Amino acid sequence: MSFDTQIDNYLKIIKEKYTNELMDLVAIPSISCKSDHQVHLDAIAKKASDMLTEIGFESQVIETKGGPCVLGKLHSDKNAPWVTVYNHMDVQPADEDAWINDPFVPILKDDVVLGRGSTDDKGPALSIMHAIKFLKENNHKLPNIQVIYETEEEIGSTHFHEFMMENKDIIEDSASVLISDTIFEGDNPAITYKLKGMQRIDISLKTGTKDLHSGIFGNGIQNPLTVLTNALASCVNAKGEVLVDGFYENTKVMGEQELVELQKVADVFDIEKFKRDSANGSLNFDDPKDILLGIWHKSTFELHGFEGIQTNPGEIKSALPYNVIAKVSMRLIGGQDPKDIVEKVRKHVQKIDPKIEVIDRGGIRAVATEFDHPIMEVAKDACKYGFGSDALFVGCGGSIGSIPVFQEVFEGAPIVLIAQSLMSDGYHAPNEQFSIKQGLRGIKTMANYLTNLADFKS
Amino acid sequence: MSFDTQIDNYLKIIKEKYTNELMDLVAIPSISCKSDHQVHLDAIAKKASDMLTEIGFESQVIETKGGPCVLGKLHSDKNAPWVTVYNHMDVQPADEDAWINDPFVPILKDDVVLGRGSTDDKGPALSIMHAIKFLKENNHKLPNIQVIYETEEEIGSTHFHEFMMENKDIIEDSASVLISDTIFEGDNPAITYKLKGMQRIDISLKTGTKDLHSGIFGNGIQNPLTVLTNALASCVNAKGEVLVDGFYENTKVMGEQELVELQKVADVFDIEKFKRDSANGSLNFDDPKDILLGIWHKSTFELHGFEGIQTNPGEIKSALPYNVIAKVSMRLIGGQDPKDIVEKVRKHVQKIDPKIEVIDRGGIRAVATEFDHPIMEVAKDACKYGFGSDALFVGCGGSIGSIPVFQEVFEGAPIVLIAQSLMSDGYHAPNEQFSIKQGLRGIKTMANYLTNLADFKS
Repeated sequence: MSFDTQIDNYLKIIKEKYTNELMDLVAIPSISCKSDHQVHLDAIAKKASDMLTEIGFESQVIETKGGPCVLGKLHSDKNAPWVTVYNHMDVQPADEDAWINDPFVPILKDDVVLGRGSTDDKGPALSIMHAIKFLKENNHKLPNIQVIYETEEEIGSTHFHEFMMENKDIIEDSASVLISDTIFEGDNPAITYKLKGMQRIDISLKTGTKDLHSGIFGNGIQNPLTVLTNALASCVNAKGEVLVDGFYENTKVMGEQELVELQKVADVFDIEKFKRDSANGSLNFDDPKDILLGIWHKSTFELHGFEGIQTNPGEIKSALPYNVIAKVSMRLIGGQDPKDIVEKVRKHVQKIDPKIEVIDRGGIRAVATEFDHPIMEVAKDACKYGFGSDALFVGCGGSIGSIPVFQEVFEGAPIVLIAQSLMSDGYHAPNEQFSIKQGLRGIKTMANYLTNLADFKS
Repeated sequence: MSFDTQIDNYLKIIKEKYTNELMDLVAIPSISCKSDHQVHLDAIAKKASDMLTEIGFESQVIETKGGPCVLGKLHSDKNAPWVTVYNHMDVQPADEDAWINDPFVPILKDDVVLGRGSTDDKGPALSIMHAIKFLKENNHKLPNIQVIYETEEEIGSTHFHEFMMENKDIIEDSASVLISDTIFEGDNPAITYKLKGMQRIDISLKTGTKDLHSGIFGNGIQNPLTVLTNALASCVNAKGEVLVDGFYENTKVMGEQELVELQKVADVFDIEKFKRDSANGSLNFDDPKDILLGIWHKSTFELHGFEGIQTNPGEIKSALPYNVIAKVSMRLIGGQDPKDIVEKVRKHVQKIDPKIEVIDRGGIRAVATEFDHPIMEVAKDACKYGFGSDALFVGCGGSIGSIPVFQEVFEGAPIVLIAQSLMSDGYHAPNEQFSIKQGLRGIKTMANYLTNLADFKS
């Protein structure tokens, strides 16, 4: 029996089991941002670990200072490379009124499972489990597989670095990482090859020790909010373009092939949907390609708020502030070093006033898997095999907290992000869903990808 | 007996009575910003009205929707002009820890009365009462005098316009207004001839209907806080200079004589004290003249705060705002029409983005009494006579809420502001005080001023 026939049979046989398993996983309300949900994080970790054990993994739940992690290992062949598979088992809260069902009492409707976490990230995780189970049961080649499930992804992977460091001795150095926690681009499978970094900063100015009367002191003394407003406007213009001196130094210009791939995405990009998703936000560009360049390939300098100012609705007091803090975040692209960027912003704003302080509130670098890395071809082939159409190479303006940790621990091993979720699945939204059909195609894709990694040497 | 001898005798005789009367007035805690203090506002109005009656006024307390007003009239000579005397009988709160006495149980220390309201504005009001009493008892010439005491000055004269409009029929049209609610300039008597106007505005931009994830939408959609920051920085630079197109159109350039008078103030201006009073605020200028030009003669464009942004201390969420309102106030100078200024700001910021809205939150014009108005000579002579030294002509960055009302009702009659309070008296500060010596000199000044107005024709 050919691989194709075997897997098609497998999918037919396990469809009902897969559906029930997904609903069981969704029924555990593993909301990581709620402090009283530790019991549910523990429960989901135990359940996921047990499922790995059932497949043949040596699996254990490992405590952290926050939610637990699962570490499962499947030894296949000592000559095969190690692949780390990462998913997260925690979910977003689900308090929205628009849910048609209890988000933690999943329902099945037209072969679609509705419930919080169905697509983010429990369904995709389950598909990979079954891909491995299939390969194992049918004696297909497998790499050595290390599964790591986290339960704090939705809150920024708070303890993930600590977990990886503390368990260094039992974590297998891996040749690549597979993550399935991203989204199709329109109807197309998507391989995410670039994720922006992130740097948060406070920009602050203290000019005195108390609020002052604007009638007595106005124009005589500095208003720190006015000074900061000028400093911020010197960093970013109304179109969102970053003007900080030297900001784009050391960043790589996009290559010809990369622009070709971008154009492929632009050709299918649904700008009306983007506008709808943004709650009718005001788009900076009309051209899909410009939007994609903006959200994936240019850094941002976003203003979020201020401390030390008047905020009372409808009230304008004639007092001048004396100690103002601006809240800023920057999404960074490849080549930008977070610490260096903080320094550049500091130099830039201190030209407006040397008293302005810039405080580092934490940053991570952008990550990318080389566009033409051979492993990308394996991923592309797998998407074509499992989903039946060509994958697009996409970027991502957001960050996945675990990725820089993997890059550090596995010293630059390629991170491959293959999407299983559809745009219509409602990531982080009410009535989140995952279609069983998509899950089964995911199994097929992941089975193809993993078996081909068994003797892949980069 | 000469006028001089008469008044010196009067001052000697009434010194004790004056002191006791001031302490009685201060003992009534007429704090206008506390909603449960209506009874004290009523009490102070009744007491002040009774004092006017005792002098010979026809006086009454008139209710408003807020604190009451006192309206007292003294008919002297039907051919004489009407002079309106305005003071306020309400006071600031006095919760500061630094008070050495209960602020409403006044004490006398080295001929100085300590207590809230002693210098702002009860002492100065009492001096004018005694000046009138002296003139009347000694059969000196008097103009017709209309006294108006307000009890909401410290909260922006909320109901004063309404009071004046509703009592139009019984309010005497006046040829001039005397206000004593300002402060000496260093050791020099001061006549305030310019007060800035004030315009409050919201500058707002709504770009969508909900907060958005900066990783998904950043650079693709507008961040309204970024747009507004750019719009605001286009209105005012870091030095506080206003850059709004056409902002200074129609304003009068300062004349030669005005600059001479300004230099006189600059020569005695205590820049170290200004710095101390500003709680070590960062001065925009080193030169006293530049500071005085700034606080008195240039408009301001002050940023006070924002709504619709992140304000949580120490937290920077990656969400983008969608509806931001900036809180702005502008202090205006002569020639600037508040409504026209709002229109100019609107045009200016809409060049950055036509969706930006500017909302008028109320404004009043700057007021000035012509520098070389003949009545200013009468005031100057009175200061020289009563205080023994030359008055300086000063400006004021703040507003007195009643003044635009008087300008409207009395159609441009000169408003003369003669200071009795000393800089060291602690306006709006703990241990507010008023020296009896200063009060007696005030009586002498006001007696001279008022008797000379009896047959003054402008």
